[in-house]
Amino acid sequence: MATTHHFLAETAHVDDAAVHALPGSRKIYAEGSREDIRVPFREISLSPTKTSGTDEENPPLLVYDTSGPYTDPDADIDLRKGLPELRRRWIDERDDTEWLDGPTSEYGRRRANDPMLAPLRFDLTRTPRRAKSGRNVTQLHYARQGIITPEMEFIAIRENQRRQALGSDEVERILGHQHAGQGFGAKLPEEITPEFVRREVAEGRAIIPNNINHPETEPMIIGRNFLVKINGNLGNSAVTSSIEEEVDKMTWGIRWGADTIMDLSTGQNIHETREWIIRNSPVPIGTVPIYQALEKVNGVAEDLTWEVFRDTLIEQAEQGVDYFTIHAGVRLPFVPLSADRVTGIVSRGGSIMAKWCLFHHEESFLYTHFEDICEIMKAYDVAFSLGDGLRPGSVADANDEAQMAELRTLGELTKVAWKHDVQVMIEGPGHVPMHLVKENMDKQLEYCDEAPFYTLGPLVTDIAPGYDHITSGIGAAMIGWYGCAMLCYVTPKEHLGLPNKDDVKTGIITYKIAAHAADLAKGHPAAQRRDNALSKARFEFRWEDQFNLGLDPDTARAYHDETLPKDSAKVA
Amino acid sequence: MATTHHFLAETAHVDDAAVHALPGSRKIYAEGSREDIRVPFREISLSPTKTSGTDEENPPLLVYDTSGPYTDPDADIDLRKGLPELRRRWIDERDDTEWLDGPTSEYGRRRANDPMLAPLRFDLTRTPRRAKSGRNVTQLHYARQGIITPEMEFIAIRENQRRQALGSDEVERILGHQHAGQGFGAKLPEEITPEFVRREVAEGRAIIPNNINHPETEPMIIGRNFLVKINGNLGNSAVTSSIEEEVDKMTWGIRWGADTIMDLSTGQNIHETREWIIRNSPVPIGTVPIYQALEKVNGVAEDLTWEVFRDTLIEQAEQGVDYFTIHAGVRLPFVPLSADRVTGIVSRGGSIMAKWCLFHHEESFLYTHFEDICEIMKAYDVAFSLGDGLRPGSVADANDEAQMAELRTLGELTKVAWKHDVQVMIEGPGHVPMHLVKENMDKQLEYCDEAPFYTLGPLVTDIAPGYDHITSGIGAAMIGWYGCAMLCYVTPKEHLGLPNKDDVKTGIITYKIAAHAADLAKGHPAAQRRDNALSKARFEFRWEDQFNLGLDPDTARAYHDETLPKDSAKVA
Repeated sequence: MATTHHFLAETAHVDDAAVHALPGSRKIYAEGSREDIRVPFREISLSPTKTSGTDEENPPLLVYDTSGPYTDPDADIDLRKGLPELRRRWIDERDDTEWLDGPTSEYGRRRANDPMLAPLRFDLTRTPRRAKSGRNVTQLHYARQGIITPEMEFIAIRENQRRQALGSDEVERILGHQHAGQGFGAKLPEEITPEFVRREVAEGRAIIPNNINHPETEPMIIGRNFLVKINGNLGNSAVTSSIEEEVDKMTWGIRWGADTIMDLSTGQNIHETREWIIRNSPVPIGTVPIYQALEKVNGVAEDLTWEVFRDTLIEQAEQGVDYFTIHAGVRLPFVPLSADRVTGIVSRGGSIMAKWCLFHHEESFLYTHFEDICEIMKAYDVAFSLGDGLRPGSVADANDEAQMAELRTLGELTKVAWKHDVQVMIEGPGHVPMHLVKENMDKQLEYCDEAPFYTLGPLVTDIAPGYDHITSGIGAAMIGWYGCAMLCYVTPKEHLGLPNKDDVKTGIITYKIAAHAADLAKGHPAAQRRDNALSKARFEFRWEDQFNLGLDPDTARAYHDETLPKDSAKVA
Repeated sequence: MATTHHFLAETAHVDDAAVHALPGSRKIYAEGSREDIRVPFREISLSPTKTSGTDEENPPLLVYDTSGPYTDPDADIDLRKGLPELRRRWIDERDDTEWLDGPTSEYGRRRANDPMLAPLRFDLTRTPRRAKSGRNVTQLHYARQGIITPEMEFIAIRENQRRQALGSDEVERILGHQHAGQGFGAKLPEEITPEFVRREVAEGRAIIPNNINHPETEPMIIGRNFLVKINGNLGNSAVTSSIEEEVDKMTWGIRWGADTIMDLSTGQNIHETREWIIRNSPVPIGTVPIYQALEKVNGVAEDLTWEVFRDTLIEQAEQGVDYFTIHAGVRLPFVPLSADRVTGIVSRGGSIMAKWCLFHHEESFLYTHFEDICEIMKAYDVAFSLGDGLRPGSVADANDEAQMAELRTLGELTKVAWKHDVQVMIEGPGHVPMHLVKENMDKQLEYCDEAPFYTLGPLVTDIAPGYDHITSGIGAAMIGWYGCAMLCYVTPKEHLGLPNKDDVKTGIITYKIAAHAADLAKGHPAAQRRDNALSKARFEFRWEDQFNLGLDPDTARAYHDETLPKDSAKVA
């Protein structure tokens, strides 16, 4: 069992497994309207098709790439320095932020000044930024003013999966085929323009989570008129794992396709762990601040106060967390609605707040202070992920009144956040049998005015512990098709233990499958090209191409070689 | 690489891993109207719930059990003797069959008389049976005459998953909760009666695959008004595996829940391999006879003849194969419809027949001799599984005219089979994006007059070789919900290599998840009880119960112990 004392800042180094290019692939960048808009893609090279005449060329395939500089052989990766500040100039140019002298949260200052933490601490050479007084620095605020930010243009290029190279007419007949989709009201344009991105953000249907204190991010968007995204969770606990292991899980998760990472750490040194993760993450980082607030009151939920929570929000916002899960919909009157459930309240944040509400017999401070929270969010551009603290923990409890009452409240809070030009997405379940999945999506769209939905699975049955990546992958694919914008992964260890790197990979690949299946079913214009390219390779026995076009070339190759180990079999 | 020379009949022995009872479980039998109707169940014992007062008892849970005598500690398992002939008396009593002197197929006689094969051969002490002249021995024939066979009664008891023990009112409030389902026209009665089974069979909506030469089977039913079933494939090939490995895969597959097994062997000694499998299988066995017919003409499809095929059907029917995949819908005029596909014809049987039709420029002999085939089927009660030789091999090719033309033909052939009182199910795809899955089910119901549908997946995307159990498990769960009666599993090795035992287990568990998720969504009356029992155990931290109620207790326990290895953590 690894513990934190093994980790030392001075010897931190990147996980070797995360820095190799994927087989047959190279990193390329598509440039935008200015030279510092450089959008990363992975280009998969393919071999020609053998024919009796001239070989048929197969154009390389561009795929969306979440792995950041780690897979760029030209990048100088040093965890101790963190990633380059891709967005720094864009933030500077807007001239609506100011540098602070240092952390303004009490806790942030205390950690910064604790000499005992020096061996663990990331050596951050800059201080936090915050919006200038009276300014609002959210992408939603800019969008509503008609401003297309560099972030929006970056996203437009990224979402298009621009096809650089086309094949011959005959090859394009195959690669370009696309079934008409069924989008249930999603509107997927043939081409994503920067203006389309702006409008989707302005209307609240999409969010761009990127805190001004996380300039290392490659901008991405979450909304149902874009590619379906996935989130991977990591987090140490009192029981196991070190800072290094968590950073390794992050670099490993993005290698396989995590679009965002949530750091759910609950153990020691979570402030320092978070700093290492954010500084080295090219994808947005989400957290559940109430977890850390609870640590600060020694795990006694009843002792939580608005002041402790507020200080935690500022602490994390100044580190650069891009979205906060906040369970502001767990209102006092809803708590009794969970009394007759099979599995009560299973959301950790939900049960913390329910305990607090019942003990004090008072309305949740997250609800009563919601506008105060908005003020913090807009000073750093942190997006809300409004937590579903009353989500069902079993199929028995799916779609019950506790869940729906909370969802209606989240809809009400969405409007409050929008009043402040703060970006919002809504979290959803959980455990739901297949035939009740669509109701979740439909109600969410209705109650929350099309704010993006972000669900955990849902698991469509409870009878397969050890395989909940699969029970939930089924529900995730379906709700993604119905309109869910981001799918929070579930690993094989769900309900049983903490995921290791293998579990992280299995969870990510399963959810890439679910997200892509959803894109196909919705009819996303670029989605089927990869399936077609792989199917063509398969039909032509181009084994290496088949492996490399897949989500996990390493596993496909290993499986093939297990029973048919000869090279000759691969080119047969 | 194991080869057949390792296998000797005299030393054949059961795989140890297949004969232990599952943890916390014991085999019980529910008796029917006569003492020889003994329906097996697995009873999972549960620990009481600790309360501040008297402990709350949790009644044991009965689950459907496909594992046969292997998990009965009182059974005397000897692969060399085969399983007891559970149905022998029932078949005898009907007095409509006669014992043959020996195999009547030419090939069967040749193999029986080949002294070189003696070391490999299963020592079968009985000769085959066949219907008396002019008699029809199918369950469909009996059903239409209003006869409720012991097989039908057995199935009724089995499908009810009779709840022997009930808990207290409060416990039943939790265990008995069931969401109203959405069955898309499926009619799931609260209680399955023998008469209901008879009527479903009589009307062609369900089949009972049990050849009179496979009296070892525990009767089971395939139809959309019953529990969704799954099939596991095995089969040796010229490249790898021995008879013993294939028998081990069978006993392993049924341990984890395979309702039927298809033997797709294509290598040496497939006649002998099949005999070992059938004699030791308590579940129905399906085959694709054209595979063996092709071996008999040295792999040259053009050399196939009706006579070789007919002899193969009789050979296999007299061994006891319960259903035959027959690609009689691959008609000459449909072959050109596949010309513009991305992946052409991917069904092995389909491409064999397409090659034959094109070479001879003649209508398929499977189609022209369809009534002759029916005559054979009804003499042994072999069910048709009408093959989808033109199924799509990629999402690009889903639901195209080639596929639909074949499906309409399968509907036409269904009516011909029914005219002969021969049982029929229909095979379906394959590779289909999510939004086109339901069309497959709806068209099948329409064209084939509600004959049971039996699909391979479908895979909802092509981009994840190495994970096609998951890409297909998503489609399988959905089509099961929409009305598919049996789901043919896909293992992680699909498209890459031959599955080993681990792959078989992963495939089976994934498909048990899909089938159960479908049962839940349809609202099968007994389905949610297991979810509820597991969720209750989970909520109460009864770890051992949670493991034991799951589809794979071993993996759940191992995952848990990996990070939380202490016993104290399990009872926390």
